[in-house]
Amino acid sequence: MSIATATRQLKKRLGARVDTSREGCWAASFDSSKISFLPAAVITPRQESDVGIVLELANKHRVPVTVRGRGTTLMGSAAPVRGGWVVDTLKLAKVSIDADAGLALVQAGATTASAQRAAEKLGWFYPPDPSSKEYCTIGGNIACNAGGMHGGKYGVTRDFVVALRGYLPTGEFVEWGTATKKFSAGFNLRDLWIGSEGMLGIVTGAVLKLIPQPAARWTLLTSFPDEVTALKAARTLFRSRVQPAICEFLDRESVLCAERATGKTVFPGQAGRPVILLEFAGGVAEVDDLKADVLAWAQREALAFREARSRAEAEELWAVRRKCSGAMFELGDAKLNEDIVVPMKNYEKFARFLAGLKRSSKLPVPTFGHLADGNLHVNIMYHREDKAEAKRAEAAVQKLMETVVAFGGAISGEHGIGLAKTPFLRLQHSPVQVKAMQAVKRALDPRGICNPGKMFDVVRIWKFPKLEVKFPWDHK
Amino acid sequence: MSIATATRQLKKRLGARVDTSREGCWAASFDSSKISFLPAAVITPRQESDVGIVLELANKHRVPVTVRGRGTTLMGSAAPVRGGWVVDTLKLAKVSIDADAGLALVQAGATTASAQRAAEKLGWFYPPDPSSKEYCTIGGNIACNAGGMHGGKYGVTRDFVVALRGYLPTGEFVEWGTATKKFSAGFNLRDLWIGSEGMLGIVTGAVLKLIPQPAARWTLLTSFPDEVTALKAARTLFRSRVQPAICEFLDRESVLCAERATGKTVFPGQAGRPVILLEFAGGVAEVDDLKADVLAWAQREALAFREARSRAEAEELWAVRRKCSGAMFELGDAKLNEDIVVPMKNYEKFARFLAGLKRSSKLPVPTFGHLADGNLHVNIMYHREDKAEAKRAEAAVQKLMETVVAFGGAISGEHGIGLAKTPFLRLQHSPVQVKAMQAVKRALDPRGICNPGKMFDVVRIWKFPKLEVKFPWDHK
Repeated sequence: MSIATATRQLKKRLGARVDTSREGCWAASFDSSKISFLPAAVITPRQESDVGIVLELANKHRVPVTVRGRGTTLMGSAAPVRGGWVVDTLKLAKVSIDADAGLALVQAGATTASAQRAAEKLGWFYPPDPSSKEYCTIGGNIACNAGGMHGGKYGVTRDFVVALRGYLPTGEFVEWGTATKKFSAGFNLRDLWIGSEGMLGIVTGAVLKLIPQPAARWTLLTSFPDEVTALKAARTLFRSRVQPAICEFLDRESVLCAERATGKTVFPGQAGRPVILLEFAGGVAEVDDLKADVLAWAQREALAFREARSRAEAEELWAVRRKCSGAMFELGDAKLNEDIVVPMKNYEKFARFLAGLKRSSKLPVPTFGHLADGNLHVNIMYHREDKAEAKRAEAAVQKLMETVVAFGGAISGEHGIGLAKTPFLRLQHSPVQVKAMQAVKRALDPRGICNPGKMFDVVRIWKFPKLEVKFPWDHK
Repeated sequence: MSIATATRQLKKRLGARVDTSREGCWAASFDSSKISFLPAAVITPRQESDVGIVLELANKHRVPVTVRGRGTTLMGSAAPVRGGWVVDTLKLAKVSIDADAGLALVQAGATTASAQRAAEKLGWFYPPDPSSKEYCTIGGNIACNAGGMHGGKYGVTRDFVVALRGYLPTGEFVEWGTATKKFSAGFNLRDLWIGSEGMLGIVTGAVLKLIPQPAARWTLLTSFPDEVTALKAARTLFRSRVQPAICEFLDRESVLCAERATGKTVFPGQAGRPVILLEFAGGVAEVDDLKADVLAWAQREALAFREARSRAEAEELWAVRRKCSGAMFELGDAKLNEDIVVPMKNYEKFARFLAGLKRSSKLPVPTFGHLADGNLHVNIMYHREDKAEAKRAEAAVQKLMETVVAFGGAISGEHGIGLAKTPFLRLQHSPVQVKAMQAVKRALDPRGICNPGKMFDVVRIWKFPKLEVKFPWDHK
C-alpha cells in the first residue's frame, strides 16, 4: 500500500491531529542539525493512546515513524531521514509531583524546565539540565540520555528515571518499572529505552526521581596559567572528594570568545587564561563547611580566583560560561560540536592532544565542559565555504574521535548518535557490539519502522546543505 | 553431540579449571533456595577470557550454562535447573580503586564487602549493601540489581554501574560503557544486562561509581503505637525532604521476634511496638543540622525514641534489626520471603491489607524493610510438614503479589525473579511485555544456553524438596 493510502487511513482514525500541510511537514522536517527531510504527515497526539494508533498503522503499512520533542538535538536524531510520519509530542505535556515520595510524573512532551519548576515549588530538585532545558523535552532527554552541568555529582537522565510507559514499534502499550525507587522484576527494558533515540519504541510518559532542593549555593571562579595546569588542579580537588555540583572548564580560546563578547577580561590584566567555574550546593551548613577547604585549594592551585557573595555576583561569574558558545561564531560560520568524554586519569594527556590538534588543523577548537564527569564540548570552528578549512575540520573530528576512544573515553556523553555521530559509532563499538544492538533492534522493531536510518547507517551530515533557520535556543 | 563429549572438549581447553567430580558438581547444584539440580561440570575461570571459551563451546554444543557468585540468592537464580555447566566466578575477584575519579574497577567474583572496604580505605563509599554483602558478589548484585538498606537515598546497584564487560551467550567479548560517568553512544546494553540474571550473557568485570564516604552518622530508634501510625509518620518525614541514609521499619511481629531473641524489650514497658530505625549520614555539619528537625518530628509523631550518642550505642539500637530475621524461625520452619515494593502513597493501605492477611491466613507474617523506597520484606512463616499451613502460605503469597501490583508496586525490589518469583511475573508484566523480553532473549541468546528455565517458565519452588544445608550467611 502506498504511504498516501496509509496516511488517509491514519486521518480517518485521528482526524485533525494529522497534518499533511506543506508548512506543517516542512516545520517537522528538521531538528537543530538543520538538515531537512520532508515527512508525509505530522501527528500531534492529544492523548498517549494516539501514539499507539500511529505505530499500529505504521507497523502494518511499513511507514517510517520519527518522534520529536522540540527538535533541539544537534545530532539529527529527530530528522525524518526516510520520510514517513513524524510524531510531535507537543501536546503531551502534563507534569505532576508526588511530594511525599519525591517523584515527578511527566508526559514525554513536557519541557525539562517545566518539570524542574513544578518540583522546585514543592522543595524538590530535578538535576539533569541540558543547556536547552527551557525548550527540550523529557522525552527527548530520555531518547539521548541527556546530561548537563550537574551530571558529575548528581547523574544524568538515566539516573533519575524510575519508570517509563509508551508503545512498542508494533503499537502495543508497555510499562517498564513502577513509580518506586526499587524494581527488579524481569529484563530491564526501561533502561534499554533510555538512550535508544526513538528506535525501539516511543516513550509517552515517565516517572522521575527527585532529590531535595539544595538550600544553599556558592560559586567560585578560578583561573590558571594554562590548560594542563587547570586540569591537573581539578584532579587534585576531586581526589580530596570534594564534589562540586557544577565544575565547568573553559580553555583559553573559549575564554577569549567570552571576553570578546562581554568586552572585559575575566580577571583584570589576565586575558585568555583558562578558567574553572565551580558551584557547590547543599545544606547551608554543608556548603559553609566546604568553603575553607575549597578556598585553600584555590589559593594553592589557581592563578587567581573570585567567590560570589550573592546571587547577583554569581550571575556575573557565570557570564563567562554563558557567553562563550555564541561568541564562537566569530571564529567560523560552521561548528562541529562534539560532546566527547575523557576519563579523568587522561585529562592532562587530552589537554596536550588538543593543543596539538589546534596546531595541526590550523583551526580554532574552543573547548569547554563538565570536569566532574569528563564530558567536554570540543568545538571545531571553520568556514563552510572554505573547502580547505572544511576538509581540515573533517580530519580533525576524525582524529579527535579516534583519540578519545584510545584514551578510554566516549564519543558522546549526552547528545547521542543520531546522524551526526554515525561515522564514529564503530570506533566506540566492536562489530560484535554493533551486531548485538542490531539484533535487539530487530527483536523489538522487526519491520524497522521506528526512526530508521539512524545510529547504524553512516551519514556525514556536514556534507548536506544546511537550512538558514534560527531557533529560539540557538546561541545569539 | 552428547554433553559428555562437549565436557571432554572443554577439559582439553581449560584443564583443571573444569571440575566434574561428584562433590564439585553437588556443591554447585544449589544456591540459597536449597533446591538441587546437578550440573555436568563446574568451571572456575582463572581469567576472564576463560568465560568466553566456556560460552563459545556451550553455544556450539547447546550446553546450558548457569553462572554463580557465592550462591546467596534465595530466588534459585543460580540453580542449574537444566543441568549443563556452572561457571563459578570465585577466582575473578580483583578490585582496584581510581581515587581521583571515584570509581571502583572490579571483577564479577569480588564480594560486595571487598569492594566497599577497598573504596573506604581511600575515603570513598559504595552504598549498595545487600545483607549478605560479606559473601555475595558484584556479579551477583548486577544479575539481580541488588539493593539494600541504602537504596532510598543513594540508589541500587544499577545506579552505581558505569560500565560492564563480559561475554555474550555466543562467547563473544563485549564492553558496554566506558570508565566515565557519562556515556550516550549506542543502545544501552549495559543496563539491559543489569537485572538480567545471567540470561543475556555473563558479566566478568564492572566499573562502579563511588561517592565520598560520609564523615558522620547518627542513629535514632523510634517506636509507634501501630503500623499505620508508623507508616504515616514516615511519610510526614519524607514530605519534609529529610533523607535518611537508612530508614528501616519493623512491624509488631518482627519486633516481638527481636525481643524474644535479645531477651529484652526495645523500649522498656512497650513490648511489641512497631519501630522505625533511622540513620542519617553526611558531613559533620550536615548531620548536625538535621538533628533538631528530626528530633522534633520524633517528639511529635513517635510513642518513644532514643538516639545513639556513640557507635556503641548505635550498635545497640541496631540489635533489633539484626536479630529479627533469624528469630522468625521460631514461628515456623519455612519462610516465604518476598521483597515486594509498595509506592509511598499506599503505605497505610498496605499496612491495613497486611493486618488482614495475617488474620485470614492465620499465619505469622513478620514484615520489615526499607521505608525510603517502599521495599518491604514480607515473611510468610509456616511449618513445612503441616499441609494446611503450607496451603494457606501459598494462598497468602498469591494474594500478597496481586495486591502489591494492584497498589502500583513491584513483586521484587532487589531479589529478582529466578525460579521463586516465576509464578508472579505475569502479574507484573502484560503478555506484550513478557513477549518483548523473550524477543530480546532470543536476539542475544538464540540457542537459549544462558541460565535456561528461569524467569519465564513457571516453577513453584516451595513444592521441591529442600536440602538440609547451612550457609555461613544463613540467619542463626
